[in-house]
Amino acid sequence: MYLEKINSPEDVKKLNIEEMKVLAQEIREAIITRDAKHGGHFGPNLGIVEATIALHYVFNSPKDKFVFDVSHQTYPHKMLTGRRQAFTDEIHYDDVTGYSNQNESEHDHFILGHTSTSISLALGLAKARDVKGEIGNIVAIIGDGSLSGGEALEGLDFAGELKSNFIIIVNDNDMSIAENHGGLYKNLKLLRETEGKTETNLFKAMGLDYIFVKDGNNLEELIEIFKKVKDINHPIVVHIHTQKGKGYKLAEIDKEPWHYTMPFNIENGKPLNADDGEDYTDITKEYLIKKMKEDKTVVTITSGTPGAVGFNKKDRDEVGSQFIDVGIAEETAVAIASGMASKGAKPVYTVVSTFLQRTYDQLSQDLCINNNPAIIVVYYAGAIGMTDVTHLGWFDIAMMGNIPNLVYLAPTTKEEHLAMLEWSIKQQEHPVAIRIPGGKMISTGKKVTKDFSKLNTYEVSQRGKKVVIIGLGTFYQLGEKVATLYQEKTGVKATVINPMYITGVDEKLLEELKKDHSLVITLEDGVLDGGFGEKIARFYGNSNMKVLNYGLKKEFLDRHDIGKLLTKNRLKADLIVEDLLKF
Amino acid sequence: MYLEKINSPEDVKKLNIEEMKVLAQEIREAIITRDAKHGGHFGPNLGIVEATIALHYVFNSPKDKFVFDVSHQTYPHKMLTGRRQAFTDEIHYDDVTGYSNQNESEHDHFILGHTSTSISLALGLAKARDVKGEIGNIVAIIGDGSLSGGEALEGLDFAGELKSNFIIIVNDNDMSIAENHGGLYKNLKLLRETEGKTETNLFKAMGLDYIFVKDGNNLEELIEIFKKVKDINHPIVVHIHTQKGKGYKLAEIDKEPWHYTMPFNIENGKPLNADDGEDYTDITKEYLIKKMKEDKTVVTITSGTPGAVGFNKKDRDEVGSQFIDVGIAEETAVAIASGMASKGAKPVYTVVSTFLQRTYDQLSQDLCINNNPAIIVVYYAGAIGMTDVTHLGWFDIAMMGNIPNLVYLAPTTKEEHLAMLEWSIKQQEHPVAIRIPGGKMISTGKKVTKDFSKLNTYEVSQRGKKVVIIGLGTFYQLGEKVATLYQEKTGVKATVINPMYITGVDEKLLEELKKDHSLVITLEDGVLDGGFGEKIARFYGNSNMKVLNYGLKKEFLDRHDIGKLLTKNRLKADLIVEDLLKF
Repeated sequence: MYLEKINSPEDVKKLNIEEMKVLAQEIREAIITRDAKHGGHFGPNLGIVEATIALHYVFNSPKDKFVFDVSHQTYPHKMLTGRRQAFTDEIHYDDVTGYSNQNESEHDHFILGHTSTSISLALGLAKARDVKGEIGNIVAIIGDGSLSGGEALEGLDFAGELKSNFIIIVNDNDMSIAENHGGLYKNLKLLRETEGKTETNLFKAMGLDYIFVKDGNNLEELIEIFKKVKDINHPIVVHIHTQKGKGYKLAEIDKEPWHYTMPFNIENGKPLNADDGEDYTDITKEYLIKKMKEDKTVVTITSGTPGAVGFNKKDRDEVGSQFIDVGIAEETAVAIASGMASKGAKPVYTVVSTFLQRTYDQLSQDLCINNNPAIIVVYYAGAIGMTDVTHLGWFDIAMMGNIPNLVYLAPTTKEEHLAMLEWSIKQQEHPVAIRIPGGKMISTGKKVTKDFSKLNTYEVSQRGKKVVIIGLGTFYQLGEKVATLYQEKTGVKATVINPMYITGVDEKLLEELKKDHSLVITLEDGVLDGGFGEKIARFYGNSNMKVLNYGLKKEFLDRHDIGKLLTKNRLKADLIVEDLLKF
Repeated sequence: MYLEKINSPEDVKKLNIEEMKVLAQEIREAIITRDAKHGGHFGPNLGIVEATIALHYVFNSPKDKFVFDVSHQTYPHKMLTGRRQAFTDEIHYDDVTGYSNQNESEHDHFILGHTSTSISLALGLAKARDVKGEIGNIVAIIGDGSLSGGEALEGLDFAGELKSNFIIIVNDNDMSIAENHGGLYKNLKLLRETEGKTETNLFKAMGLDYIFVKDGNNLEELIEIFKKVKDINHPIVVHIHTQKGKGYKLAEIDKEPWHYTMPFNIENGKPLNADDGEDYTDITKEYLIKKMKEDKTVVTITSGTPGAVGFNKKDRDEVGSQFIDVGIAEETAVAIASGMASKGAKPVYTVVSTFLQRTYDQLSQDLCINNNPAIIVVYYAGAIGMTDVTHLGWFDIAMMGNIPNLVYLAPTTKEEHLAMLEWSIKQQEHPVAIRIPGGKMISTGKKVTKDFSKLNTYEVSQRGKKVVIIGLGTFYQLGEKVATLYQEKTGVKATVINPMYITGVDEKLLEELKKDHSLVITLEDGVLDGGFGEKIARFYGNSNMKVLNYGLKKEFLDRHDIGKLLTKNRLKADLIVEDLLKF
């Protein structure tokens, strides 16, 4: 076994071609075995094995610097840079993150997990090298799916005027997470078909030199070309054509579900853990499909992540042109939604909280200044979702909750969520966002009759005295628990409120509560800074009402344990009641 | 005079070519006369006169829909769509906004003033048309300078897969606000030189059909081509080559200063109002130039607005490669800054508050998660800056003040600003942003000795009792005034605090103040929601300390009167003291 002898890129350089081919096979087996047991990015890693070996064989990392876009394809790189145990030894699987991370290795230069950033970040490395008078190759490795993102295209363009060494490896496997979208993919296809010879060439049009590698899984070919471009004195794109999922038959055939995988049976590809029942994603999808069938002007939009919002290939085919995948292009997604809504169509942009961050200005300028009634459904918001530091879902409230005109709603049950969706599509007044709650779906069976057009009217679900508990979205049920426990301990029945509106304060209700309450607590599944609770604290600032805000500390955490995080922030019923008793 | 008979596009259609040429001349004269008296966008409007006439002659607005990117070139369009008086009659100059605005006219479809949005917004109009089964042309008009922005490139790419009518007019005048940056401009040049014939074509590479117009100021040629593409059944780019500043000699020669002009003397081009002395922009530039000369690793970055941050052509030439203009590409600017800072270079990204919004995710992911010590200097933040609704500077605190790891500083004087700049460049710990205060520069002559590395330590500039006044940045001096007036009225000497740190709370100090104070007021030049004051309100929420937050209401305002705005939000010393006395 060669892999077990690879402790740094130096060890790769000692191998001959045949040995490297065996190494490639070993790396592939490690990825398949690990992902089958642990889950992880699959297809992208299997596709880039040979290219990664060739990079480390030809270049001298860390003097030469690699920046892997979005990090979905960094496993082989990690294995060759001193981190192989995390892929070969089950008890070490969690020793490394799933993403590039400079705290793990001198061969990584950034923590990154959002797409389309590699070229611009690498340009920073190149500029630093140049102003410091240093030498070395700067290499950005970017997949075709990531190319459609604004930052990547900006980076390509600006790279076109650089006058020093800069290498962009375009890893073209003809796929984004799902199929690619956008006109540039026709050009990649034409380039593949002409073996890079057509003059209609996106990269040349951006001012870049260009070279094509026909078989991006062929070590000899890769090494030859990488040697050729090494130490080049200007920017060049190396377009390599690889096979996503290579080496695992099912992933080679059906690429989309094998982009990322949960633990599975290697023999038949079946998931090891059963689907745990209907969730908010399912019911949202079902609702939208039904709505799209009833009304041709209802359109669901995604920016390259149809699977994350529950729309598989069959669902997309079912609704045809009423499902728009703009590719990885969140800015364009929001702009299109605004434009459609301005003329009476009903766009519903479905997007994961962390990726919504990629379009703040379009939310503000393209959408909210124009006050167009587009709908945004926000998935995986809060602490109970993705846990990688690059994918945290707890900044959305602070990020967009302070933009004027936006109505940001926080349902607490299935019934509320569906009622909010229904209202948001019917109304013509405001841009509306709906934050899907974290955790298991809760269904009460109760019909929701609320008129959501009466903005910022909170619901009092239990009228008590002395203490008010305002539980936003995900944490409404925590609020109920606090009330029950508090009553058990003190006999005092607290008032419990489901605020529903993240973006506004129910001043009338809050004012009225002053007369027989002395303490308000707020609970929110997001950072406290800039969040919901602070607005309540401000409202009561000049009164005798005391306010305690519960939520998350402003910090970046990597792969947090949710239970510990909630405990640390005292977001548990017993801890909150303890605080109340002390108060 | 033809212009005075144009009340709608219908009236343009009645003219023959010779009459339209006279109309073009009249429009040009109106622009020059109005901008000389009133100020406004100049070069871009002069360049697009013929194209706008031709568009209205050939197409049928509003059934056919035009979306003008960034709105810097909408004056001719406004004159032809019922708003000519605002350009020909001095007392009506302020009747219309400087930007596209659907509330002004059915011929406008969006309020927009940030660049690079037109294609994606227009794609929304096209999608709405298609799902509603309507017909009509959708036309996006975008300047070459705007093309480098991520959203524009995303839009170009996604347009490439549209299967219905969509027309993109690329108004190529070979200029951004300053010179263009990025590799794609080499391609535009090649396309001009080959009269559109080269196969290396950015637009074709994005999957779009393409046609070239050699003289974009030639009415006959424009009309011929526009007739040809009208009602086309697929997306096409019409690349027109126009002359920026056409018709005003000085603007034709020296394009950059004539992009936007303040009132000037038509005879000699000299500004009517004298420069009102040294300001924060000047001293920042002087400081940075000095620093760049001392240290080759200090680099100033702009994203297409060197003039807005005070760097004219001469200054840029003086520092050479240490001044990086990435073109309109804010996302890439932040990523490059992060990359440079990660390797020990000293990037200083100089950016206008409203445009910093265009890069939220890069601030969070590319910069702050990586905690790289890049520096951002934020211009025109707060209420006392730009007043167009698309350029408001009062959202930056709520937008980025809640991102972990960022140290956002608010100087209150020249000396503090320079000391913060000095520290930010020296330190290696954090990304640091500095918010230039609004209003006239204040200089105390006092040397600042504070150690800024002791984060979140506020400065107590006057120790009093009962009342604490925390005046952030721009409003620190207002805080001093409140203290003086309050003492005059009550004899009570308040404690006055200059917090300096926007992004953190000085818990020790705030705790200590509890013992002999009962009221804290906070003053900030930004929206209250998600802002600085709410953090103070949260801190004191569970105590007996009362808190009053002063700042701006969360709203979009267009061309606000600053005095009235401050009064409305009670941001005046006498009004605040009135509140205090009532309290």
